Amino acid sequence: MGPEATADFYLKLVHATPAMRDQEHLQVLIWSDPTIPDRTDALLTHGEDPTPALIAGARLLKAAGAKMLAVPCNTAHAFLAAVQKEVDIPIVHMIEETAKYVQLLSPTVQKVGLLSTTGTQKAGLYQSWLDREGISVITPAADCQENLVMTPIRAIKAGKTAVARPLLIEAAQGLINAGAQAIIAGCTEVPAGLSADDIPVPFIDPAEVLAVTVVRRVLANR
Amino acid sequence: MGPEATADFYLKLVHATPAMRDQEHLQVLIWSDPTIPDRTDALLTHGEDPTPALIAGARLLKAAGAKMLAVPCNTAHAFLAAVQKEVDIPIVHMIEETAKYVQLLSPTVQKVGLLSTTGTQKAGLYQSWLDREGISVITPAADCQENLVMTPIRAIKAGKTAVARPLLIEAAQGLINAGAQAIIAGCTEVPAGLSADDIPVPFIDPAEVLAVTVVRRVLANR
Repeated sequence: MGPEATADFYLKLVHATPAMRDQEHLQVLIWSDPTIPDRTDALLTHGEDPTPALIAGARLLKAAGAKMLAVPCNTAHAFLAAVQKEVDIPIVHMIEETAKYVQLLSPTVQKVGLLSTTGTQKAGLYQSWLDREGISVITPAADCQENLVMTPIRAIKAGKTAVARPLLIEAAQGLINAGAQAIIAGCTEVPAGLSADDIPVPFIDPAEVLAVTVVRRVLANR
Repeated sequence: MGPEATADFYLKLVHATPAMRDQEHLQVLIWSDPTIPDRTDALLTHGEDPTPALIAGARLLKAAGAKMLAVPCNTAHAFLAAVQKEVDIPIVHMIEETAKYVQLLSPTVQKVGLLSTTGTQKAGLYQSWLDREGISVITPAADCQENLVMTPIRAIKAGKTAVARPLLIEAAQGLINAGAQAIIAGCTEVPAGLSADDIPVPFIDPAEVLAVTVVRRVLANR
């Protein structure tokens, strides 16, 4: 979906792979289709449904030989159950895996702050998976969500990464002040603007969790 | 080929695209196959020929819908004429495009220094394309080539980027002392270890030239 996030995810996958030379790395096929209809618009304002394009992409990858799928877009996960029904290769679920990872940090972390698109937030993706682990999720109030989260996410998608950082730091700090013991970068654009060094609590990057999970599963299947 | 270089090239392509939102970016299919036999070994020590794997990759991408191919690996260009014969979609030639770009810098630049794999160097890829533009190429002596160029390239392929930088700076400085008026990063791993700020003459990144050329051609075809 977001091409910057796709490039960033692939780099995370490369770095998560134990390899000393090219030939030890994984064979990866990437279908980067930024033209897929906006996921947040579909969830909030009845914009075009991205599901058919997601299914077409999954089928394209399977037809070209893919044995496992990963989708490094949080908001797209609201549509993935429908995609999984249409392809018979496993989709590694980024949000489920992140919830399992956060659970490892409890009881130190019992409340997490979520920086995500408004689509991911309203679809309750992290809330539903983290509830199962007994961890609660706090999100920015509507005005902060728009001005301090969606604005920098759109800036990153437009290539203006420097603008994004102070806004995302302010959003994270607001969540920490409200009791968040960790921050989830719940949109794959967020780590392009905010890093672990910017905040005083653990910074959880679901794209990193997804990369590590994919590598572990591939190596386990060998 | 090199997965780090593949990720870096895709990021360069994203940054070279004039786009304000996801949906304005290009649809890109990436076949990252690090298992393709080592190109330098094939050229220098009769290692396994990578041509069949390159042809298979080109066919996979075409079958999945690709209309244009780019190969962000310099050494692989020694085998691309054979690949182009087997697929009827155009392969944008990174080294030809770089030679045209360097020509724009003449007469200021009449002699360039080449930091590349020993395979690219011995195959004379840059030499043959730059000769046509009246520009000469100088390369490191054999011991410098091994210790100051191949060693850092292998380090980058193994994920040890920090080790690479001082060695590549020393190699570039040696070429500048020998009269190079610009440095070509003639292996796509090199820009991961050396940047324009590290050297006092123009730093030419063929992956950047390839990215800009691909975007220009796609937009011209629309």
